[in-house]
Amino acid sequence: MTKINLLGLLQNHALFRHISQEDVRELQKEVVKLELGKGSMLFRKGDMAEATYIVVFGLIKLCLPSSQGNDKVLELIRGGQSLGEAMMFLDEPYPFYAEALENTLLLKIPRHALLQLLDRSPLMSRQMLAGLSYRLLGFIRNVERYSLQNATQRVIDYLLQLSASQRSNDIRLELKKHLVASLLNLSPETLSRILHQLMDEHLIKVYGASIHITSEEALKSYQQNMHALA
Amino acid sequence: MTKINLLGLLQNHALFRHISQEDVRELQKEVVKLELGKGSMLFRKGDMAEATYIVVFGLIKLCLPSSQGNDKVLELIRGGQSLGEAMMFLDEPYPFYAEALENTLLLKIPRHALLQLLDRSPLMSRQMLAGLSYRLLGFIRNVERYSLQNATQRVIDYLLQLSASQRSNDIRLELKKHLVASLLNLSPETLSRILHQLMDEHLIKVYGASIHITSEEALKSYQQNMHALA
Repeated sequence: MTKINLLGLLQNHALFRHISQEDVRELQKEVVKLELGKGSMLFRKGDMAEATYIVVFGLIKLCLPSSQGNDKVLELIRGGQSLGEAMMFLDEPYPFYAEALENTLLLKIPRHALLQLLDRSPLMSRQMLAGLSYRLLGFIRNVERYSLQNATQRVIDYLLQLSASQRSNDIRLELKKHLVASLLNLSPETLSRILHQLMDEHLIKVYGASIHITSEEALKSYQQNMHALA
Repeated sequence: MTKINLLGLLQNHALFRHISQEDVRELQKEVVKLELGKGSMLFRKGDMAEATYIVVFGLIKLCLPSSQGNDKVLELIRGGQSLGEAMMFLDEPYPFYAEALENTLLLKIPRHALLQLLDRSPLMSRQMLAGLSYRLLGFIRNVERYSLQNATQRVIDYLLQLSASQRSNDIRLELKKHLVASLLNLSPETLSRILHQLMDEHLIKVYGASIHITSEEALKSYQQNMHALA
């Protein structure tokens, strides 16, 4: 079992910023540590939502299953982020499944423990309302991306985001290409075509799962020009 | 000014189900009635979110503007529903605009009045958390629809939904066809092509803004069969 400072993790998490030391200590007794190996399921579509999960390290993919096998990636949850809050408030089963893409450590906060805290702390409720609102905004931004940007613009957006979050022009694709395609609402073939097109324009170089951005400015202006032409 | 029973409307709204009579009376003093003519703007993209709005009657469309003119319809808000909660918790401007599609009466609940109530009532907070969660689930269902269903399946889904909510096989399109297309992430041309295809299959008849569903069962089984073939 990975050794972690559970109390420290809870105290430093945004969700529990506004509750007392005493309440965090009480909460700690209810929290369950979960280690998931790469490829393991956290929950399946149809399971009932009984907890909120905080990812300590690793990577969780939330996916809508498809009977045709091309599951749709809904969201990626990374270290420090949480998942499952929204479904906990609704008496409905999960419409998606959650699978570990890497070895992942999670904290499982049972529903009853979290609701108890929320009932006692208006500031924590406010924090959670803001958290759900922020997630809703993320979905709206996503709709904006797929409905108002063309495929090439979406791919460039994704590369620029990765470059910003990894603070480098040499970016590592954390996902296999078919998952990147699903996340961007593209077919794998379209993603490949666009990456080749950007290579032909000398805007990027692709080395397996790594991509080098030749010039961020050139990439941005290419994206802008597409917009003007669209 | 339309005469309405403001107190009754507030008391009966799900959002205020858990607050005291006294608190509703206090709230009433802060609420502003807004009448919007068809085509009027409630707010624009970039405006700051200072309130939550309850629609008493009418129809509001939330839209992402596009420089190319093909704005993307994000959501329709009908009588009894509310809008703007999520953005109120974030210090960010609206990423969408809100426009009345019909003559619409709204109640504007100022941010400070709502936050005050939330700080005093854990049950109201819980109600609002559930409300935001439900909206998030709606977005997920929407992603499911556009990414796992083909265009024809989406159109059939929409017709069956309208038929269920209007409790009739003779349905009235409440939106112009280009707005229906935007809502379903289709081009207007694709929507027209699919409606013609369904007419050719004798599944529906189209009379201007009205559609007659010949047989719900036949329409459903057509949709199912497409799934099996996809």
